[in-house]
Amino acid sequence: MAKFQIDILGCGSATPTDRHMPSCQVVNFRDSLYMIDCGEGAQLQFRRMRLKFSRLNHIFISHLHGDHFLGLPGLLSTLALHDTGGTITIHTFREGIDILRKIMKVFCRDTSFDIVYDEIEPTRGIILDEKALTVETFPLYHRVPTVGFLFREKPKKRHLRGDMIKFHNIPIAQLPHIKDGADFITPEGKVIPNALLTTDAEPSISYAYCSDTMFKPAVAEDIAGVDTVYHESTYLSDNEHKAAPRGHSTAAQAGRIATMAGARRLILGHYSQAYDDDASFAAEAATTFSGTIIPATEGLRVDLL
Amino acid sequence: MAKFQIDILGCGSATPTDRHMPSCQVVNFRDSLYMIDCGEGAQLQFRRMRLKFSRLNHIFISHLHGDHFLGLPGLLSTLALHDTGGTITIHTFREGIDILRKIMKVFCRDTSFDIVYDEIEPTRGIILDEKALTVETFPLYHRVPTVGFLFREKPKKRHLRGDMIKFHNIPIAQLPHIKDGADFITPEGKVIPNALLTTDAEPSISYAYCSDTMFKPAVAEDIAGVDTVYHESTYLSDNEHKAAPRGHSTAAQAGRIATMAGARRLILGHYSQAYDDDASFAAEAATTFSGTIIPATEGLRVDLL
Repeated sequence: MAKFQIDILGCGSATPTDRHMPSCQVVNFRDSLYMIDCGEGAQLQFRRMRLKFSRLNHIFISHLHGDHFLGLPGLLSTLALHDTGGTITIHTFREGIDILRKIMKVFCRDTSFDIVYDEIEPTRGIILDEKALTVETFPLYHRVPTVGFLFREKPKKRHLRGDMIKFHNIPIAQLPHIKDGADFITPEGKVIPNALLTTDAEPSISYAYCSDTMFKPAVAEDIAGVDTVYHESTYLSDNEHKAAPRGHSTAAQAGRIATMAGARRLILGHYSQAYDDDASFAAEAATTFSGTIIPATEGLRVDLL
Repeated sequence: MAKFQIDILGCGSATPTDRHMPSCQVVNFRDSLYMIDCGEGAQLQFRRMRLKFSRLNHIFISHLHGDHFLGLPGLLSTLALHDTGGTITIHTFREGIDILRKIMKVFCRDTSFDIVYDEIEPTRGIILDEKALTVETFPLYHRVPTVGFLFREKPKKRHLRGDMIKFHNIPIAQLPHIKDGADFITPEGKVIPNALLTTDAEPSISYAYCSDTMFKPAVAEDIAGVDTVYHESTYLSDNEHKAAPRGHSTAAQAGRIATMAGARRLILGHYSQAYDDDASFAAEAATTFSGTIIPATEGLRVDLL
């Protein structure tokens, strides 16, 4: 099966501590790496997880708060220093691009390292369309403009039934169309329905990253039908009164979003430093979500297949 | 005795690794903290060493390379988040100030945290003059404008000899002058030399921070007579041919500077990742310097007294 994994590089909120690093994940889709958020220390975590800088071509920043962004200058400096070739595209808001340009101008004078800046908006839309994968933004509800990212594997081709292909003497030139779902019309004009010639394609996998946000059912609508959702759970319900004013969610609210979206798997993270037991977050989310719950921790790899 | 210590937060070169963090030190002078350089991860190291953010009022940046600067945005964001009150002064080059202003504007919108920017020049001069301490810059010889920092305890007052003060019936109002070295003139006009009334003050301690620089005797002249010198030793002599072109020094060259400056103690650091045995740096420096040699390591505290 083609690889689709999430590596957790950091899952704490606000500042780095001995327990948690600030937000950073890496999506490994068929050995291409897509980083989401880049808190301070991300480059060191990247190295610790033995990921390859040469495979990293896209970095997505959900919003311009330090714990999601400030690892980026150091990571880019290191990439520039090693100059692995190729380009890297940074998807972020305009003010973030302005700052990065300025930093790179001062700190990476001598490099030919190639950075492409892709300005994003806090709206819904496809921002990356590759051969087998799309990435969409959708709005989140935080204190500054913030988006989530939805990674969708494109629909896969149907499997040919060798016996039937042979039986109907279907020419090779026709096979790509059959894989795409077309019926076959014999030289005599008879229609052989596709369902007789193929079996179902493997399902396409999707992953939604939701951080940071207060609880909003609109988020569940935007990611409806997703397989796996990462949703921030900064607080437990004992601090629910703090959550919305600060643009954050509780673990129970994260579970509700996963349930409403029809997800089968929920990853939790962005834990407040006020708690020293991550297991409580999963326990609380289980009261509102009956699927698989995975509390993020640094170094964790989640297989999405 | 009044405290004067150096804490090593990071002593590697270029990028953070599992063995070393990029450059950062904290001078603790009588419980006021002065940070020198601020590589990525400095705020986490600061916390790990149980230093107090509320005691940190000055940060000195030797030059605008990422491994000496890029921990600053994160550290300042954290300080802004905790808003411990008081001000912090950043001593750095103009381009660094421009970047910090821009970053703070975007990432620390909601804070009243007070930052003072002090623009420095790559020349010799006193940049901080406090009650009991001065900090001077002096030029280093790297690929971009770079300075070292020389911390000098101000001359201390002489100790009064109680027996002699009593014997000569010296009025209390005169004592501050006697401590400063004045002679005493009796009502009869007789001069009592200060040497009979006082004993020597404790010596004033000084500390020079030299990173990053190629080997230059001018550096030794600028810090002549210093007690303890930190001098970068990126390479061993096997790579001496790389050192000067890259604006760096070998451990043997660091030892020569310490010898020429007449220092009694040498701290080594800024080790290249190419070496995996820090002890070799001290062994090599010992061939050119006969004083105490301290290889820096993260978490090390050096007492300068």
